[in-house]
Amino acid sequence: MKKNILIAQSGGPTSAINATLSGVILEGIRNDTIGMVYGALNGIQGIMDNRIIRLDNQLLDDSDFRHLECTPAMALGSCRYRLPQYDIAPDIYKLIAQTMQNLDIGYFFYIGGNDSMDTAQKLFTYFNENNIDIKVIGIPKTIDNDLVLTDHTPGFGSAAKYIATSMLEIIRDAQVYDMQSVLIVEIMGRNAGWLTASSVLPRTMGNSAPHLIYLPEVPFHLDQFIKDVKAEQQHYNAVVIAVSEGLKLADGRYVAEEEINQSVDAFGHKHLSGVGQYLEHYIHDKLGCKVRSVELSVLQRCAAHLLSGTDIAQSRQIGSSAVKAALAGENGKMMAYKRISDRPYIVDIETVDLALVANAEKPFPADWITPNGHDVTDAAIDYLLPLIADEVSYPTFNGMPVHFQFDKTPIA
Amino acid sequence: MKKNILIAQSGGPTSAINATLSGVILEGIRNDTIGMVYGALNGIQGIMDNRIIRLDNQLLDDSDFRHLECTPAMALGSCRYRLPQYDIAPDIYKLIAQTMQNLDIGYFFYIGGNDSMDTAQKLFTYFNENNIDIKVIGIPKTIDNDLVLTDHTPGFGSAAKYIATSMLEIIRDAQVYDMQSVLIVEIMGRNAGWLTASSVLPRTMGNSAPHLIYLPEVPFHLDQFIKDVKAEQQHYNAVVIAVSEGLKLADGRYVAEEEINQSVDAFGHKHLSGVGQYLEHYIHDKLGCKVRSVELSVLQRCAAHLLSGTDIAQSRQIGSSAVKAALAGENGKMMAYKRISDRPYIVDIETVDLALVANAEKPFPADWITPNGHDVTDAAIDYLLPLIADEVSYPTFNGMPVHFQFDKTPIA
Repeated sequence: MKKNILIAQSGGPTSAINATLSGVILEGIRNDTIGMVYGALNGIQGIMDNRIIRLDNQLLDDSDFRHLECTPAMALGSCRYRLPQYDIAPDIYKLIAQTMQNLDIGYFFYIGGNDSMDTAQKLFTYFNENNIDIKVIGIPKTIDNDLVLTDHTPGFGSAAKYIATSMLEIIRDAQVYDMQSVLIVEIMGRNAGWLTASSVLPRTMGNSAPHLIYLPEVPFHLDQFIKDVKAEQQHYNAVVIAVSEGLKLADGRYVAEEEINQSVDAFGHKHLSGVGQYLEHYIHDKLGCKVRSVELSVLQRCAAHLLSGTDIAQSRQIGSSAVKAALAGENGKMMAYKRISDRPYIVDIETVDLALVANAEKPFPADWITPNGHDVTDAAIDYLLPLIADEVSYPTFNGMPVHFQFDKTPIA
Repeated sequence: MKKNILIAQSGGPTSAINATLSGVILEGIRNDTIGMVYGALNGIQGIMDNRIIRLDNQLLDDSDFRHLECTPAMALGSCRYRLPQYDIAPDIYKLIAQTMQNLDIGYFFYIGGNDSMDTAQKLFTYFNENNIDIKVIGIPKTIDNDLVLTDHTPGFGSAAKYIATSMLEIIRDAQVYDMQSVLIVEIMGRNAGWLTASSVLPRTMGNSAPHLIYLPEVPFHLDQFIKDVKAEQQHYNAVVIAVSEGLKLADGRYVAEEEINQSVDAFGHKHLSGVGQYLEHYIHDKLGCKVRSVELSVLQRCAAHLLSGTDIAQSRQIGSSAVKAALAGENGKMMAYKRISDRPYIVDIETVDLALVANAEKPFPADWITPNGHDVTDAAIDYLLPLIADEVSYPTFNGMPVHFQFDKTPIA
């Protein structure tokens, strides 16, 4: 008897999350033992609210799949809702299970970051303990690249490509005037320096810049920072600096902590912005030279006009592999990439236990940070380069990218 | 007897200014009556300092020209130096003329905005009054599109394409959560609203957003702004707003100057925040909903990974036409675009008097702003759409764009 698929997307947007969705839908359509492919709107909340749409009949040909794969941010919508522990809210678990059983769901796929893997792990445990036959597979996505037990995460490569390309162009822009200046680029990644480290890549194109790279894994010292900038100014007119939004002082406080709005989201994360601006003022005060800060902001996660071809191909493939794994009986797992080699670049897809991934974070490796604390090593470059390789030609209309949009009318 | 060309670039960077340089060099090489093509580094300052390089022998084949055309920011460097009046600094004029005569320059091309056209006009007048046979032609460039007597300016189309595309992606990003939110995008153009108006273009792709567009040509009222946002919130969960960096209150002060207690940073300095950030805090205060601001920043003028094919083709052509005009005896002119029709899109290139362009500004037309003051009309869309048409496939290496760089060793 055929079983149906339910899929949902959660957490923060990436440019590649819909390529994974595309892979799941395509594999679901292709496979004879699968009935229909459903999508929940706004993640797990759409299951609780019974806002579920059918997907397999909305993608009619190759060009629909291609449009979906070039569309940034969750095509099904997202949520920041985190499933409470079972003993606190058993009714939510029962509601979710009932909704899925009503739709004859045999396989549930949740695409998200480590918070979402926690939700997937809790559902897996509940289904398992209550003999509910719904396989649960998590599929990673996060531009932050901070999930453990996977070489990298879908979405990171495209974000890294956007950062590397933008940094390259900002370097050109910073160098046009014949005067001393400092340019600070603030990059996402609250706790992990993967994205900020990607700003090094323009150096492989014959640039000396960026000259200084500060990751959140290294305690930040304002005095040393000024010394670092002065040292670079001995060599370069335009000093270009990459900083993580999450830079912390030795005492653990964020660098810009006094100046930021201390709002806290549902997970207790502080909303950060402003370290670039803070350091801009600091340099202006201490060195008096021309200084500007640029925040790359949300385009890092949604600039689908600059997708990594490698990222999109792998993101589609990991979605497809997730369906195959579930059909082969895997359950309570997250799909993961395993790197076989850098050159030639070879990656396998495997499964790891959800329980080992949920809530864990993978920092940028200490041995890929140079001893001076303001640069990354060649090993980091070797790791990063394959992830931004290849371009994606996206469909356009009126000179702008064409995005795919589902009809979001819930099934009766 | 063959005469040589001297060319220089000035003002703020654009993504298309090197396509114009490419057009001038190519036409110079192609034309039998031209000897060599020289470039001054950092605009008029490079002529004063005798920092001049040879260009025609550095572009060897089609791919060099293509690389140069896809390279953002001035390949020759720029300056913000403005030539003083002759009676204040006659020696500077004599120095410039002498340097050009030493190199047997017959034609001088200055690529820049209205400040640069003022410099070109002054040199033209000086040469003319002193019987110095050097023809002076200005070639426009500015992302701001605020030069008079030309339909548009080289560089504007690519900046508008970047803004339209980024806005489209930011709209996708803003809509993923099922909650009320406001997203403010701050766009360049201190006095003219052309760039901010370009943010309307995603609406031609089936989007309701952006919902509100505020140009610097319309006095800004904070009370009315909050009313406008509330009205949009009746219809849309995620309200997306485009604001010009140059928004002014009715009394002429910039909006961010309104802040009575301006933030004082850790160093005791008052800082005027950007208007986007200011309005973000204002909405948060007044409406309490989730709100974020994004500043598109310098990428608007240097994101050459997203060039407008129309802009680059026209920018090259206007450079080539400038050489032809000078050879035909034109002098003291700026090259200009004249639009013949929107559909089909037909543009001629003509010349206008430098004196009429220098220091003048062209605001966004009042009759293209809707009566409510927070949107633009269909006529604006008809004007803008052809300018962002067509994509440019740029050369890549390591997954990043390849930029052209001149050997900047000055000639002996």
